[in-house]
Amino acid sequence: MSVTPRDKAVFEAGIKLGALYHQFVGSPISPKTVDSLEKAISQSISVQPFVKSITVHIDRDMVMENLNSFGYTELTGPMLTVDAVIRYENYEVFAGMALKDGYPLMQVKEVKEA
Amino acid sequence: MSVTPRDKAVFEAGIKLGALYHQFVGSPISPKTVDSLEKAISQSISVQPFVKSITVHIDRDMVMENLNSFGYTELTGPMLTVDAVIRYENYEVFAGMALKDGYPLMQVKEVKEA
Amino acid sequence: MSVTPRDKAVFEAGIKLGALYHQFVGSPISPKTVDSLEKAISQSISVQPFVKSITVHIDRDMVMENLNSFGYTELTGPMLTVDAVIRYENYEVFAGMALKDGYPLMQVKEVKEA
Amino acid sequence: MSVTPRDKAVFEAGIKLGALYHQFVGSPISPKTVDSLEKAISQSISVQPFVKSITVHIDRDMVMENLNSFGYTELTGPMLTVDAVIRYENYEVFAGMALKDGYPLMQVKEVKEA
Repeated sequence: MSVTPRDKAVFEAGIKLGALYHQFVGSPISPKTVDSLEKAISQSISVQPFVKSITVHIDRDMVMENLNSFGYTELTGPMLTVDAVIRYENYEVFAGMALKDGYPLMQVKEVKEA
Repeated sequence: MSVTPRDKAVFEAGIKLGALYHQFVGSPISPKTVDSLEKAISQSISVQPFVKSITVHIDRDMVMENLNSFGYTELTGPMLTVDAVIRYENYEVFAGMALKDGYPLMQVKEVKEA
Repeated sequence: MSVTPRDKAVFEAGIKLGALYHQFVGSPISPKTVDSLEKAISQSISVQPFVKSITVHIDRDMVMENLNSFGYTELTGPMLTVDAVIRYENYEVFAGMALKDGYPLMQVKEVKEA
Repeated sequence: MSVTPRDKAVFEAGIKLGALYHQFVGSPISPKTVDSLEKAISQSISVQPFVKSITVHIDRDMVMENLNSFGYTELTGPMLTVDAVIRYENYEVFAGMALKDGYPLMQVKEVKEA
């Protein structure tokens, strides 16, 4: 079967989430730097093609609970909630990442024809 | 529109390529270590869900041309050619990454219903 | 020879620069997002132990020159100028990273006993 | 105080450990791929300047204990034991990373004048 614009839209959504995760997970983080890391991650992904919008939320409670004796921790997948809208031709893909059953799960939530 | 198995198959393909790129680009590499890095990258992605097969090729000539005075360089996107087959339910997605017009391009090449 | 506080101070400086480089190189970036990425990188490193201060500068001209057809590029080592002061016991280490002969070079510039 | 060869040797040791950690932590891993990832990490670091030797060990038990429902997990800091010898001029630095009190700790263990 030939590749459709809808396929391409959904594929691009997957790329963005895989990229975000493996670029930024592992970054040192503390309660004071959550804001700047959230902003940098969302801006970093937003410059990539076909990203209509993106919000990145890092769970402050999980950051607090995981602080080591030096007062910081590392960004992990379970801390991240991401919602992104990818637009390719006339398709909008609503995709994201959120904690489910203890694991960060990436999902396509909806595909709209605009 | 509801999300279809085909959407999920293509989405998973995108995740794998985005992940591979941002996890391993930047790794120090020399002509002697190309083989082990290729193998580790392909194995690392192959453990993820829905990956039926994956081949990773790193361009030896580009590694050679980019060696610094210490005899090594870093893995970059243009050095990578990747071919992956993602299987989700009855869909097989053929996707990959290759150099095009000087840039690494990720693409869905075919979607097959099995 | 036993390991001295001075050794530990210099060692910590090396860790921070190696970490910064391999965590953030590869991040998507555009002229509009340089500020937020600079801030996130410097804050991310500043939460780690023994970091007294750090400044991170990303070369705007290099970002502009490397934009692809989609209007963004990736953070690379040569774009980065970093100056950090690491304090361990009574030692202050001034270390950094800067472009030299086309390559990003990490260096200890001075060690002060406070 | 001027920077000594000993400082440089220890600094280089820190760079290698910081780089290794932030380049490879987050890599997908399963019991079957531990060997290839260990080899790729140690080879990748060994191409960098001043690395006389390096061994990388990934804890198989921790990999097994952390497998998700898809049969894989991600490389984390606590899974890693690293021993490296850095040689700069007439100094040899024995440094490494190992789990201590639940956290991965990077340390200089000895500095030898050769």
